[in-house]
Amino acid sequence: MLALLVTPRLVTGQAAETARSVVLFVGDGVDDHQLTIARNYLLGADGVFVFETFEHQAAAKVLTVLEADPRVPEYVGDSASGGTAIAAGVVTSRGRIATRAGTGEPVPTLLELAAGAGKRTGIVTTSSVTDATPASFVAHIGGRFCEGPSDMLPTPTDPRCPDDLKARGGAGSIAEQLAVSGVDVLLGGGYEHFDQPDEAGVSVLRRAREAGYRIVRGPAGLREAEGDSGPILGLFGDGTLPVEWVGEGGSRARPVQVTAAGQVIAPEPFRCMENPDFGSRPTLEAMTRSALTRLESAPTGFFLMVESASIDKQAHRGDPCGQIGETRALDQAVRVAVAFQERHPDTLILVASDHGHAAQIVPWPSLFAMRRSDAQYPPGKVARLRTLEGGLMAVSYGTNTHYLEEHTGTQVPVYAQGPGAAAVRGLIRQSDLFRIVRRALALE
Amino acid sequence: MLALLVTPRLVTGQAAETARSVVLFVGDGVDDHQLTIARNYLLGADGVFVFETFEHQAAAKVLTVLEADPRVPEYVGDSASGGTAIAAGVVTSRGRIATRAGTGEPVPTLLELAAGAGKRTGIVTTSSVTDATPASFVAHIGGRFCEGPSDMLPTPTDPRCPDDLKARGGAGSIAEQLAVSGVDVLLGGGYEHFDQPDEAGVSVLRRAREAGYRIVRGPAGLREAEGDSGPILGLFGDGTLPVEWVGEGGSRARPVQVTAAGQVIAPEPFRCMENPDFGSRPTLEAMTRSALTRLESAPTGFFLMVESASIDKQAHRGDPCGQIGETRALDQAVRVAVAFQERHPDTLILVASDHGHAAQIVPWPSLFAMRRSDAQYPPGKVARLRTLEGGLMAVSYGTNTHYLEEHTGTQVPVYAQGPGAAAVRGLIRQSDLFRIVRRALALE
Repeated sequence: MLALLVTPRLVTGQAAETARSVVLFVGDGVDDHQLTIARNYLLGADGVFVFETFEHQAAAKVLTVLEADPRVPEYVGDSASGGTAIAAGVVTSRGRIATRAGTGEPVPTLLELAAGAGKRTGIVTTSSVTDATPASFVAHIGGRFCEGPSDMLPTPTDPRCPDDLKARGGAGSIAEQLAVSGVDVLLGGGYEHFDQPDEAGVSVLRRAREAGYRIVRGPAGLREAEGDSGPILGLFGDGTLPVEWVGEGGSRARPVQVTAAGQVIAPEPFRCMENPDFGSRPTLEAMTRSALTRLESAPTGFFLMVESASIDKQAHRGDPCGQIGETRALDQAVRVAVAFQERHPDTLILVASDHGHAAQIVPWPSLFAMRRSDAQYPPGKVARLRTLEGGLMAVSYGTNTHYLEEHTGTQVPVYAQGPGAAAVRGLIRQSDLFRIVRRALALE
Repeated sequence: MLALLVTPRLVTGQAAETARSVVLFVGDGVDDHQLTIARNYLLGADGVFVFETFEHQAAAKVLTVLEADPRVPEYVGDSASGGTAIAAGVVTSRGRIATRAGTGEPVPTLLELAAGAGKRTGIVTTSSVTDATPASFVAHIGGRFCEGPSDMLPTPTDPRCPDDLKARGGAGSIAEQLAVSGVDVLLGGGYEHFDQPDEAGVSVLRRAREAGYRIVRGPAGLREAEGDSGPILGLFGDGTLPVEWVGEGGSRARPVQVTAAGQVIAPEPFRCMENPDFGSRPTLEAMTRSALTRLESAPTGFFLMVESASIDKQAHRGDPCGQIGETRALDQAVRVAVAFQERHPDTLILVASDHGHAAQIVPWPSLFAMRRSDAQYPPGKVARLRTLEGGLMAVSYGTNTHYLEEHTGTQVPVYAQGPGAAAVRGLIRQSDLFRIVRRALALE
């Protein structure tokens, strides 16, 4: 009797741990601080994103090593090393796409393992589909910037990827690898990396068509392709797709001005608005919905990676509205997956990040403005946002004086819901996500 | 039979939710970034602090409002508003100690509710016991800087607390309130705030003695007092206690130098070392052990708050070794509580934070150093630390150009273990910790 009572519970427990499909979101550059900035603006200080309601949450350590000596840790990663940790479960050096630091040995990715197990696969991103995060799931190459055939040869400041040239027995650029990858759904930007001749003088677009891809470039093409279940390559922009939101009048963070008399001139507060240049392109939400519609009928489930890429890219630019709008886009795309999961409870949803970023909420005026007679202000760029709840939020970017802001080395949050999600708890390594998904999908 | 099998499980579940005692740690200024900095240095990038192994973890929103209009959110808090949220469950304005924004109405604290329910109480801190975090659990006053009787009158830059003067029917300064609080164990710094005459010309120390406190000022006094179970006021320094660690040769972050030719001169890397000026004072670990020993025999349990205060204070100074050493002190004090919990499983342990802080791990050299010919470096102060695992970690402080670094507005982590800990999950408000502890201790 005891055995009878216990056994079904164990069986149920095991069954619940196996997922048929996985939707893995990557918020590029998301950390606790970037999330708080976006939450304060969009939902108010007491708001909550849909993924923040997920039952299982963890913090992930971002581990990276030096290329020159992979025994030595590097304390700040990038989308290539972070993407590779998540996609392939290995700690590698910055810039590497699903290859080991030092040796360049390719390592199998979750997407490849899922495909090998008969699952369908998909990649959705607001960057070029050849950018570091999506590439980490599909390609294997020494340098993230080798996006198309013309990017392979060394430049004065970047060794690029001469060893990956097909003439040297390599697999070619990231676009060339994607063109023959067999990934069922590839949606994002990056047309310019495909519209190039390869080493044999054949355009990568043609290679993709020869491999069976239907190539679409706008929402109409995406809709027309709905009747067709074959592989699709949607390229909705030349490079990174435009962001959904911008600051009023293009406002972003700028250096604080101080008068000769020591008076701090605060940057004028502004609000965020829809980007007039977004055009008719599909949003991340629309691309996610389209991908899930195409993958829903997969006989044995699927693996889909969805990236909101420009949280990172706009943080680099010191553009809080850009990063807030793209965090909103992430939340909306996750809502689509949650609705899908309600219909298909055997779906595991994960929301992860590859590395931290520069923006910090700072007091304005300074905590010390009243106590000190000298000027008190941050040394970097500052934006003051009028939030939707009527507050005034000052965001400081203080990591690079003259150019783009830098990634930071903080641990990053992870959210999970669905079968296999319970392993997302406490403090994990980014690379544990590979093992968690592999186990959830029973891949080997 | 089914009922018999099910009922004991339910009863156990309910019983497990009630804690006899609570040890609440506050890491002042702790956020994901400050934790990662300390972990990388102390334990290596793949290390783990003891509280990071706790079964229940959450992120807490730091909610603060404007004093002038408490309907309007402020996006960066301080130790007073954060301490009050945790201690008393209300969202207040910066600087307020267990009083409501706008009105100044006092709000009951967890420590007071626990005392009212017959539990013993304790406060341990590396700051003055009159500083904002400990004060938030014991005192009620409009301004955090009213630590002693001489701090009550307005200054040109701070209105201070004239309405809280005893002559005006108030409860007096924080030290005066502590002296008659009846808190069983008060250990920390802040002798200078007690060694002052009150409005009647009587020293606050004498008031404390009259109220039954045994006053000790060193480790010998603390040891001697072990045989005595009466109230103890341990004041081991005039103000904030010295920190356990400093940078080699006093090194901390400093502005990056750039030559006329645009060459970036990196600050010299350094290691952390024990602070030669720490002296024979009890460490946070020793004070925590002493407090738990005194409180262990409490007939109906206790409420103990333990603060590692100088994670914040050293982050303000741009001193990474200071903040790393004090995070180590927090971890060591938590270990003492975990050992206590092993003997007393009816103890709930929480580790919380009041607000985020300035330090960020940045890449060194810049991510763009190779791609750009102009100098790439952070605009604020930078320290480069040689970690114990042999890496080089660059820490940037970029929130204030001329004076102390600022608090930041990020959400902060919470860790919990023991009866009642399961409520610590997902995204909560800082003020939810008040309700979680109140429920765990069955207080009303």
